[in-house]
Amino acid sequence: MTLPGQLTPPPRLLLGPGPSDAHPRVLAAMSLPLVGHLDPYFLQIMNETAEMLRQVYRTTNKITFPISATGMAGMEACLVNLLEPGDRAVVCSAGFFGGRMIDVAGRTGAAVTAMEQPWGQPFSMDRIRETLQSVRPKVLGIVHAETSTGVRQPIEELGKLCHEFDTLLVVDAVTSLGCIPVEVDRWEIDAIYSCSQKGLGCPPGLSPVSFSQRSLDAINRRKTKVQSWYLDLSTIQKYWGEDRVYHHTAPITMVYALREGLRIVLEEGLEVRWKRHQRNHEALKAGLAAMGLTYVAPEGYQLPQLNAVRIPEGFDDLPIRQRLLQEFSIEIGSGLGEFKGKVWRIGLMGFNSKPTAVLTLLGALDQCLSGNGSAIAAANEVYRRT
Amino acid sequence: MTLPGQLTPPPRLLLGPGPSDAHPRVLAAMSLPLVGHLDPYFLQIMNETAEMLRQVYRTTNKITFPISATGMAGMEACLVNLLEPGDRAVVCSAGFFGGRMIDVAGRTGAAVTAMEQPWGQPFSMDRIRETLQSVRPKVLGIVHAETSTGVRQPIEELGKLCHEFDTLLVVDAVTSLGCIPVEVDRWEIDAIYSCSQKGLGCPPGLSPVSFSQRSLDAINRRKTKVQSWYLDLSTIQKYWGEDRVYHHTAPITMVYALREGLRIVLEEGLEVRWKRHQRNHEALKAGLAAMGLTYVAPEGYQLPQLNAVRIPEGFDDLPIRQRLLQEFSIEIGSGLGEFKGKVWRIGLMGFNSKPTAVLTLLGALDQCLSGNGSAIAAANEVYRRT
Repeated sequence: MTLPGQLTPPPRLLLGPGPSDAHPRVLAAMSLPLVGHLDPYFLQIMNETAEMLRQVYRTTNKITFPISATGMAGMEACLVNLLEPGDRAVVCSAGFFGGRMIDVAGRTGAAVTAMEQPWGQPFSMDRIRETLQSVRPKVLGIVHAETSTGVRQPIEELGKLCHEFDTLLVVDAVTSLGCIPVEVDRWEIDAIYSCSQKGLGCPPGLSPVSFSQRSLDAINRRKTKVQSWYLDLSTIQKYWGEDRVYHHTAPITMVYALREGLRIVLEEGLEVRWKRHQRNHEALKAGLAAMGLTYVAPEGYQLPQLNAVRIPEGFDDLPIRQRLLQEFSIEIGSGLGEFKGKVWRIGLMGFNSKPTAVLTLLGALDQCLSGNGSAIAAANEVYRRT
Repeated sequence: MTLPGQLTPPPRLLLGPGPSDAHPRVLAAMSLPLVGHLDPYFLQIMNETAEMLRQVYRTTNKITFPISATGMAGMEACLVNLLEPGDRAVVCSAGFFGGRMIDVAGRTGAAVTAMEQPWGQPFSMDRIRETLQSVRPKVLGIVHAETSTGVRQPIEELGKLCHEFDTLLVVDAVTSLGCIPVEVDRWEIDAIYSCSQKGLGCPPGLSPVSFSQRSLDAINRRKTKVQSWYLDLSTIQKYWGEDRVYHHTAPITMVYALREGLRIVLEEGLEVRWKRHQRNHEALKAGLAAMGLTYVAPEGYQLPQLNAVRIPEGFDDLPIRQRLLQEFSIEIGSGLGEFKGKVWRIGLMGFNSKPTAVLTLLGALDQCLSGNGSAIAAANEVYRRT
């Protein structure tokens, strides 16, 4: 076999659902030399990373650290630690990732009630209250930012509601952390997971999680071992906690990356970052509207970082996305599941939530969709007045 | 909170049980820009990586790819896909990682027979045959290179033996791949896992696995879903295989790293690489012997890449390791479990299996253990004649 040649990734502008481009400082951090996973220097790096994660999650939860795998492993970590056979769980699903949570929760042996509604609709608190009242689950799982539909699910009051029924609230923040407010303590979230490659501006590979004291108490009351050894919080936390007991070999370089990504987030400041995401979203939205593109998510529930829009009549999904990739080296996302071929997903996340990304994409889309330049004008109008 | 400063990892020489230093070309590959996980360029990178992995594993197994997490997730992936409640498994354990395999296998709900013997002893084929005969397990799990004891378990004939009893052979190659021969097809191995940070010269973060057709047939006959969604082969293989169905977001940068690491392995050639590991091991061993240090593993079963030696009388574990780290910036490993405080583990893996590493360590150890320079002389004697 002839060996493959040198790595020469094409320089993309990644405006899909993630990964988003990593910040150049993060990429630079990844080429630093390794240290051992029990090296005093690395233990300090772990402490600093965990402490910055707490800031970003707005929590004092002791158990706050990155799972050594991608976002979906974070979902699994939350569910397999909190659920065991005989438990009841309710999972809210109005999109692809809600559906996935049902699958993952079901594999714990818990009885899962799927609370479904049409893709793209946020859940009402009343409906959730009724379900909590009738099912009395140990866990309620919900997606904060549904990556398949671009819907923001309001969860500000949900933790309080869950706690009325002694239910633990598990939140999927894969697409929200670092882009829009996530307030773990104030919103009384009991377990939460995210990823590294979206709002935090790092490559994919880690899943930051955080667990409340209520969650830890529930885990301590388990009757069975956690089914996953790799994701068993009782032992991972001994490595990330003060004991420093060897569990697995931490992915050193990915932790370097996350630490640098978190530093960049906190240097900017969370509020400033959220506003930046909102402003670029509004400019993009104005531009898309000028070209006649409409959002899947209802007004008031649209995610600034994930713009799911209907593919306009007269245009096909794949040729446009291929042209964007090949001619302009811009990636946008296709629709998932029932939205395949009907929806595009445009990400403006972390490092890539910036005017140049918005204007570049609108300019290229204008060319592909035979626009008249009004998209750029509309976006710039937003930039001028905000 | 004041933000932590810039990352400044101390330049270590990593001679512990792993991570070993990554090759500089691998570190450079990690700072390349991201592409999407479904980008045509990345799909090509995945194909090339899988094909090189097949070469390194010496297999034509279609299902050969890196799990998106560290080595221990590879162990879990093999066991949770092959085992379900009601199955029987035998796990051979004569060290820390054999013990861990018992724990992981037990969490599948299978009935696990732990075949234990004193740490540091290889298993005899006769004993394994007797156990297979009496238990008739679906799976036999064994560690090829036991990282806690430095013992090489001969497994050349084990696959054939297992297949006499319709048993699937699962092999832990975490510390062997890229350092000593691993012949998946010739040895009839049914499922195997390794890591990125040892013999392959990459950072930790991925676990290359390979599954035989026998394994896939067994998986197809499962009555229950695989308990782990993240590690469920039936869906991951659709992403790594021809379908390219989205499962999780691959850790792009880590795959870049692995691809570069595998390229370096194959450029050198496996046989040359194995000889290099053997030669540096012999030099190290001669030097350690000159200082009176003895191996845990019996003669003929010593791993060249993981030298577990007894801490000499009159010296304490921690002060010496701390001095090596602080004065010389060299990391060696402590003993695990029952070997804690009694054993040092010296890794010469991948990029770090080289004369400069051997001589540097021996020189520093000579200073710490009040030697007379005979260690260096003994090592150089080996180098001169081999």
